[in-house]
Amino acid sequence: MSLSSPALLTDLYQLTMLQAYFAHAMEQTAVFELFVRKLPGARNFLMAAGLEQALDFLEGLRFSEEELEWVEKSGRFSSGFAARLAALRFTGDVHAMPEGTVFFANEPVLRVTAPMPEAQFVESRLLNLVHFETLVASKAARGVLAAPDRLLVDFGLRRAHGAEAGLLAARASYIAGYAGTATAAAAQRMGIPVFGTMAHSFVQAHDDEAVAFRRFAEAHPRNTVLLLDTYDTESAARKVVAFARDCGSGIRIGGVRLDSGDLAALARNVRRILDKGGLRQTTVFASGNLDEYRMRDLLAAGAPIDGFGVGSSLVTSADAPFLDAVYKLQEYAGKPRRKRSAGKATWPGRKQVYRNFRDGRFDHDVVTVEDDMQPGSPLLVPVMRDGRRLHASENLQTMRERAASQLADLPERLRVLEPAADGYRVVISPALHELAAQVDCVTGGNSALRG
Amino acid sequence: MSLSSPALLTDLYQLTMLQAYFAHAMEQTAVFELFVRKLPGARNFLMAAGLEQALDFLEGLRFSEEELEWVEKSGRFSSGFAARLAALRFTGDVHAMPEGTVFFANEPVLRVTAPMPEAQFVESRLLNLVHFETLVASKAARGVLAAPDRLLVDFGLRRAHGAEAGLLAARASYIAGYAGTATAAAAQRMGIPVFGTMAHSFVQAHDDEAVAFRRFAEAHPRNTVLLLDTYDTESAARKVVAFARDCGSGIRIGGVRLDSGDLAALARNVRRILDKGGLRQTTVFASGNLDEYRMRDLLAAGAPIDGFGVGSSLVTSADAPFLDAVYKLQEYAGKPRRKRSAGKATWPGRKQVYRNFRDGRFDHDVVTVEDDMQPGSPLLVPVMRDGRRLHASENLQTMRERAASQLADLPERLRVLEPAADGYRVVISPALHELAAQVDCVTGGNSALRG
Repeated sequence: MSLSSPALLTDLYQLTMLQAYFAHAMEQTAVFELFVRKLPGARNFLMAAGLEQALDFLEGLRFSEEELEWVEKSGRFSSGFAARLAALRFTGDVHAMPEGTVFFANEPVLRVTAPMPEAQFVESRLLNLVHFETLVASKAARGVLAAPDRLLVDFGLRRAHGAEAGLLAARASYIAGYAGTATAAAAQRMGIPVFGTMAHSFVQAHDDEAVAFRRFAEAHPRNTVLLLDTYDTESAARKVVAFARDCGSGIRIGGVRLDSGDLAALARNVRRILDKGGLRQTTVFASGNLDEYRMRDLLAAGAPIDGFGVGSSLVTSADAPFLDAVYKLQEYAGKPRRKRSAGKATWPGRKQVYRNFRDGRFDHDVVTVEDDMQPGSPLLVPVMRDGRRLHASENLQTMRERAASQLADLPERLRVLEPAADGYRVVISPALHELAAQVDCVTGGNSALRG
Repeated sequence: MSLSSPALLTDLYQLTMLQAYFAHAMEQTAVFELFVRKLPGARNFLMAAGLEQALDFLEGLRFSEEELEWVEKSGRFSSGFAARLAALRFTGDVHAMPEGTVFFANEPVLRVTAPMPEAQFVESRLLNLVHFETLVASKAARGVLAAPDRLLVDFGLRRAHGAEAGLLAARASYIAGYAGTATAAAAQRMGIPVFGTMAHSFVQAHDDEAVAFRRFAEAHPRNTVLLLDTYDTESAARKVVAFARDCGSGIRIGGVRLDSGDLAALARNVRRILDKGGLRQTTVFASGNLDEYRMRDLLAAGAPIDGFGVGSSLVTSADAPFLDAVYKLQEYAGKPRRKRSAGKATWPGRKQVYRNFRDGRFDHDVVTVEDDMQPGSPLLVPVMRDGRRLHASENLQTMRERAASQLADLPERLRVLEPAADGYRVVISPALHELAAQVDCVTGGNSALRG
């Protein structure tokens, strides 16, 4: 799916800095890396997503007439600046981890190599896209681990943070292993499987709940899912059984949905009512303020629930609604660079991440400078050269398979919802330590990151 | 600002229900109300926002050719359904609280009165818009209360949940009292004041920090804000003083920005260095993982900080990233309706909210049925009739003034960041209790909400 976004969807300071770069011909090659400085307390790993949208953005970057007019009339910029912006395109290279890759703190997931003004300018929107999809894929992966073999569906559009968040959350959760989404536009635009049941309002609009069930089933006969909790869940389940007896063979009641109350107890009672009524094939689907913890607990309690609709907690990543994701200059004009701000220092230079396995599971990663070959598999691969994609867009299925395989290869201690006492080991290579020391020596810095 | 959003940006079940409504000619008048069932623990009040975008959406609702084609080819719907969708427009009425209005749990902020299919269909996107802007305005208002008379700027685009979240967060926080945003597109499209400083990468790209300051100031001479913490904050402050002495009268160093470390101590030391260097007019601006609690604490500690840039915590409303916002059927075909699901029951009928004052502050609200006039000011006003706005779009300034006046009128106990032990009183009127009892009596329900 291609999202068009205005070039001015950026921070004002990018424009001001561009003007200075242009004024001083600072257009040599810059290398920026996008990474997460620190995992939130409740995350043992992250899952990369959003690369496809990031590449779309880079390929499509250009200022509209209206935007250039605003720049000119704003009185903030020198004459001639708007003309420079009119010609601005992204002509650089990108290396990235493919979507669905599991990664950890301090590991670059995306690297931009481009003339300084271009590489600088794209910061805000690149982060905006990659941060959000990574956030949701990482959250969704936890649900997949907590409710294996259950049908998980994104129900979050209404409480997602705007239109794009709704669409991209459907995409990111699908990559991470969700079965699909309730958002119709995600199906139409990206081919993501779409699921739907019925709303309470439909039942309420009828004077008789049984009539509402019948009418809804007739409108959606092949795989009807009926909502039971508008008034009384168990009595609604009995109405479903009665309806199934009478409705004839054209209608298949695929499932029922529980949306409130004690879901474990209701699921058991409803399952019993359905089974006694001959509806053994009818599945029980649960929703309503669910997250990975509640799914795990419901399943641990033996609740006979076949699928879950997860909304707000998924699409807002409610327990960690943002990541410490940054995009930092690592090299300019051939010289490695680093920031040494208190608590926010970065490792300099162009980097690569190598993943090492032991007994078929991830054992540790090594972050090192690009030309320092290490054992293990390199995670960053070239995806764009001179502003053009190197490959056709990857299929969502490929990303899903990668994500599933990565989750399967995670060490057991990282596959649980609680923070692992013993987190994943990310080794900063001797070569990188040495480079940082050299950079500090040249620019006279402290040694915040050394040792 | 008008955002175009696809009609299919909705939940699949809306389409399935529409098909059933069409099939059974259930096109009589429905009344839905949008409200928040329960305030998050850390909110003493909420602030309404997003109405303008909601009305844009309702006026612009129509299916595109591509969307209709998807509906037809999906195999999910009856023949003729796509043609009905092609003709679908919103022709109903809307009542709403104006943006910037403070409100509480169980108070409708928006009411839709329209033929059932239309009123039902718009649910997902209406919630998506009004929920998000209300969420951010409510969060921003807390910052305004915590840091009165300080310059507050939205820095959140990069970690907002997608493009629309970035733009709408700028708008919502501006309504609530922020001075502006760093997001350029919000300035270009909505006229919101835009602020910008410089990034660490700009300093890093130069071999000499002092050269970076000079070049940046030359690019932005009228009101330069220089970033001090790339290497060492206090030594950078001394470079600013030295530069100011030499730079001539064309450049005005409006401010400096601190982005890491012990902000209170650094602000004091930097203030002292600036004052000694004759830069008494240069302001100190702070950023970096700030929220309303940290701003309050910094100011309580006497930190000489003139303004704050707030990013992630604001635009994701990090301590409460979603509200329990819902859109519920309250009346259909002239009959009041209610849902009685455990813990999620609703009050039936078309409602109005009356606000009562005591000693110039809000004292309590009364929620009642529409025709039950009560003392106090009614908060819901008509804003759309027969699918057309009743008034020109309200000016953002008017909304800001309303928000400021509402915050000023809040009781003191609700103006603090901690949850008030004694929350705001929202009275459910006797007439509403009676109506609920009648509805339950007719539909044979329990009495979850009575008493």
